[in-house]
Amino acid sequence: MAVYTEVTDDDLSAFLARYDVGTLVAYKGIAEGVENTNYLVQTTQARFILTLYEARVAPEDLPFFLGLMEHVAKRGVSCPRPVHATDGSVLSKLAGRTAAFVTFLDGFSIKKPRADHCHKLGRALAEFHLAAADFPRTRANALGEAGWHPLFDKFRSRSDEIVPGLQQLIHDELNLLDATWPRTLPRGVIHADLFPDNVFFLGDRLSGLIDFYFACNDALAYDVAICLNAWCFEQDYAFNLTKGRALLEGYDSVRKLSPAERAAMPILTRGAAVRFLLTRSYDWLNRPANALVTPHNPFDYVRRLRFHQTVRSISAYGLDEAA
Amino acid sequence: MAVYTEVTDDDLSAFLARYDVGTLVAYKGIAEGVENTNYLVQTTQARFILTLYEARVAPEDLPFFLGLMEHVAKRGVSCPRPVHATDGSVLSKLAGRTAAFVTFLDGFSIKKPRADHCHKLGRALAEFHLAAADFPRTRANALGEAGWHPLFDKFRSRSDEIVPGLQQLIHDELNLLDATWPRTLPRGVIHADLFPDNVFFLGDRLSGLIDFYFACNDALAYDVAICLNAWCFEQDYAFNLTKGRALLEGYDSVRKLSPAERAAMPILTRGAAVRFLLTRSYDWLNRPANALVTPHNPFDYVRRLRFHQTVRSISAYGLDEAA
Repeated sequence: MAVYTEVTDDDLSAFLARYDVGTLVAYKGIAEGVENTNYLVQTTQARFILTLYEARVAPEDLPFFLGLMEHVAKRGVSCPRPVHATDGSVLSKLAGRTAAFVTFLDGFSIKKPRADHCHKLGRALAEFHLAAADFPRTRANALGEAGWHPLFDKFRSRSDEIVPGLQQLIHDELNLLDATWPRTLPRGVIHADLFPDNVFFLGDRLSGLIDFYFACNDALAYDVAICLNAWCFEQDYAFNLTKGRALLEGYDSVRKLSPAERAAMPILTRGAAVRFLLTRSYDWLNRPANALVTPHNPFDYVRRLRFHQTVRSISAYGLDEAA
Repeated sequence: MAVYTEVTDDDLSAFLARYDVGTLVAYKGIAEGVENTNYLVQTTQARFILTLYEARVAPEDLPFFLGLMEHVAKRGVSCPRPVHATDGSVLSKLAGRTAAFVTFLDGFSIKKPRADHCHKLGRALAEFHLAAADFPRTRANALGEAGWHPLFDKFRSRSDEIVPGLQQLIHDELNLLDATWPRTLPRGVIHADLFPDNVFFLGDRLSGLIDFYFACNDALAYDVAICLNAWCFEQDYAFNLTKGRALLEGYDSVRKLSPAERAAMPILTRGAAVRFLLTRSYDWLNRPANALVTPHNPFDYVRRLRFHQTVRSISAYGLDEAA
């Protein structure tokens, strides 16, 4: 939520001279993304986003992230597109950081998505999966199923500080997921963090997807399960079946979910809930005493998980079991 | 440097419907100003800045600040201009805060101003003083000479934590200023915080002034003295006479400095240095332990003050004593 690295006018002007984008008109540090420093840059030609990568992004992953954005943008996905410097590069140095310069996406995220937003989100997710199918790079999912036990081990003994019984709940759930996690579903590049914050709308149109910094290779249907968690619960943690149906039908209308993917959905949604429960619990227990930004409350995902534990079929999310 | 108050898309769209500015295209929380929450708002018509006033701005002062911006903008000063809602108002409520909506100013602040920037700053300051001359509202300078003793009393005993001898230095300086402070100079509305951060340039042109939230009634030449402190010292605290001359000649070419104002300048610059030394010392001693934003180091103004203590005439700043 904050600008971490200050960029001076002289440094930015010198940076822009390496691109064919006109000259600097205005720039503002923006509160977008918590991991990196971002500036909105207005030139005589257009608006752009300048990103300076801070410590939490691994430099070796950047060609994957930026390559992916460029790859899917070329195939019709609306997302920020990396701008090439006149020497061809998409990564350079600025203010001591690795920097990228991408096109600005009109639109804004919707705080309270309606069913029609969920339908468009489902379509856009499937279009992204298809567009990324022939992307040649790969990146393992560090927060995938294999990473959950090690992450839990980092805070296991303090779990019940968040809510009594949480240690047992996660322990039992991880054991169940170990035994039932589907490992033969169709795989590809997933966004892995497609929360409402990362999807822009403009009027009735979905104007684009942002923030590809968790993208990785995993089961495509797991990405759908993440979105069911992120888009279809109400403030009181009730699952909104209308939104679930809209999301799943939107997705299925572009990329048909196979019988195996449908059958796996109740486990995938539990896994997705656990993944966010784990990272939010860790962040919650390790927040700085005077942090300006309060971490998300992990308890939101306990409630989601409890709902998923009652689900026996994808029909509870709004789609028929048969494809 | 942070967004304090979150504004949802629904709330912002409802807010914009009260103005004749088109519909929402994009909005980003920006890191501008440390006192208030600011958003850059792009509509189908233009760019704007939305400001939500946080606790440190007194609501009763807002008609002065916004009225002043509108008043001087009408008289040719380039600065953000408050946009009136269709019901005529310039202040409203949004997300539980008092909110204002102003035009966006192209340009950006210069980290290392050159003499030509100082000349343009001097001209713009004088033009602002002339444009504000018939502004009907008034606001006392809470950080003016009468406020320095009470502010010092708040941290006097801890002064030497900043640098040994600071308590004595400020004590002696305040006594001297009490005895010599000029009280009959031409008065009017001053900006009172016209640091390089608050002046935008675009190419060779000064494109505007921002951040009028310290504006108040005081001696006009005191505003010049603040700018001499803020614009004309090098990183090693050497006073740059070329920049000082450029600033003073720029100002004087638009609004002639009287013999009394010229004679008073060496005291006014000391007072200005003390004013920033006092507020920065107070902020430094009262910073939160884990503050994300490090306060300015007060010592910068000890060095400036020591220079001013050697000055006997405005000629040391670059302008003749005789008008």
